[in-house]
Amino acid sequence: MKIMLTLSYDGTAYCGWQTQKNGLSIQQILEETLEKITGEKIKITGSGRTDAGVHAKGQTASFETNRTIPPEKYFKALNSLLPIDIRVTKSQKASDHFDARKSAKRKTYAYTFYLGETENPLVDRYALFLEKTPDISLMQECLNLIIGEKDFKCFKASGSGAKTTVRTIYSASVTEEKGNPTKLILRVTGNGFLYNMVRTLAGTVLDYAYKKKDKNDIEEMLKTGNRKLCGKTLPAKGLCLESVEY
Amino acid sequence: MKIMLTLSYDGTAYCGWQTQKNGLSIQQILEETLEKITGEKIKITGSGRTDAGVHAKGQTASFETNRTIPPEKYFKALNSLLPIDIRVTKSQKASDHFDARKSAKRKTYAYTFYLGETENPLVDRYALFLEKTPDISLMQECLNLIIGEKDFKCFKASGSGAKTTVRTIYSASVTEEKGNPTKLILRVTGNGFLYNMVRTLAGTVLDYAYKKKDKNDIEEMLKTGNRKLCGKTLPAKGLCLESVEY
Repeated sequence: MKIMLTLSYDGTAYCGWQTQKNGLSIQQILEETLEKITGEKIKITGSGRTDAGVHAKGQTASFETNRTIPPEKYFKALNSLLPIDIRVTKSQKASDHFDARKSAKRKTYAYTFYLGETENPLVDRYALFLEKTPDISLMQECLNLIIGEKDFKCFKASGSGAKTTVRTIYSASVTEEKGNPTKLILRVTGNGFLYNMVRTLAGTVLDYAYKKKDKNDIEEMLKTGNRKLCGKTLPAKGLCLESVEY
Repeated sequence: MKIMLTLSYDGTAYCGWQTQKNGLSIQQILEETLEKITGEKIKITGSGRTDAGVHAKGQTASFETNRTIPPEKYFKALNSLLPIDIRVTKSQKASDHFDARKSAKRKTYAYTFYLGETENPLVDRYALFLEKTPDISLMQECLNLIIGEKDFKCFKASGSGAKTTVRTIYSASVTEEKGNPTKLILRVTGNGFLYNMVRTLAGTVLDYAYKKKDKNDIEEMLKTGNRKLCGKTLPAKGLCLESVEY
């Protein structure tokens, strides 16, 4: 039976989604916990890797099991055994052909900034502090330039094995959430993202909002695929995988 | 010169405000950091102790120094040296007679709950998960019963050295913040609070909202001062010292 899980996690303590030699991964914890429940060696497939320190509200994953545990039971069984910084928000039966990675159609990531005179200890774990308030209309102007099917080679990390660097961005917006502190949330939906793409895009958008880059720079960056023309890759803590659609 | 600081902190990693033999306190970190800045042995006084794991948005503290550093400079100097989970939000000159503890007139604490089908890893550090939604109008009804100048002996922890258990609660309210997840924030302002009082009050309010206690029980609890009639003392993580007024 194929099972699909929807997951939320605080990535601070982990080396990322994918199991690695050094550090504890979310995948490893899930596989070990599923082994306790099923008695089987389970291989779980995520919709994609999230890096060390990246959070998730709606990561998805799938696995195959010979056990006949009702699919919805994994919700409670896993949550009773998982550490508090990882939670299953839904468990359901999936079709035999379903694969959390290959079947994914659209993903939405959010990068959160917050404003103020200094860092806020109660927010800083999930957002990046900006001392200087960026121009929100310029942020949106920059985001508009990356919407569509484009070659995003400029965002390709060196050593990344991506076969093609063409991706489609369906929407990209910035939302201001007034409050104490006020947050700026950059939200991007696409059919897929290159490694570190959203974090580097967020850094590029900031440069644009601070007038360190203009429209010509972004067009040049996209046209040449030159990574040096992008902004900085911002810290992982501000990034959250919000949802995956199938 | 007397200096007053306003502070925000994530209490998760600390043994509380007050320096203790076992564990790292917020007071100790501030005193060590102030020693680096001033070259003096500094004794800092907080508005009150916060327990291990309790957070603060607006804790206040005062200290005396012979140095003539402009008071507002402590803001940047301290923040450049403090760990990210402690931040000074304001530093200012205070009158020679000012004492962050003795001069405090009113304090506001918030206890935050959140709702959902399971815990939320991105919220759980600062709020308590409730699987069963409590009746908000009953929460407010219970809070109304504790407003005023009363003997709160029932909330006195065994071994607490409080001289008097009479306190004045100026306001006590519950606010629903719709969202994902929805939060219920219990906010209490008083001229002072006994050790653990807000956490035990929060547990009592929950019992009332779940109809495990009624008006007679609360009146009996206040009249007799019997701690056994109170609800449970809820976990520290949901509690936050919001502000101190002078």
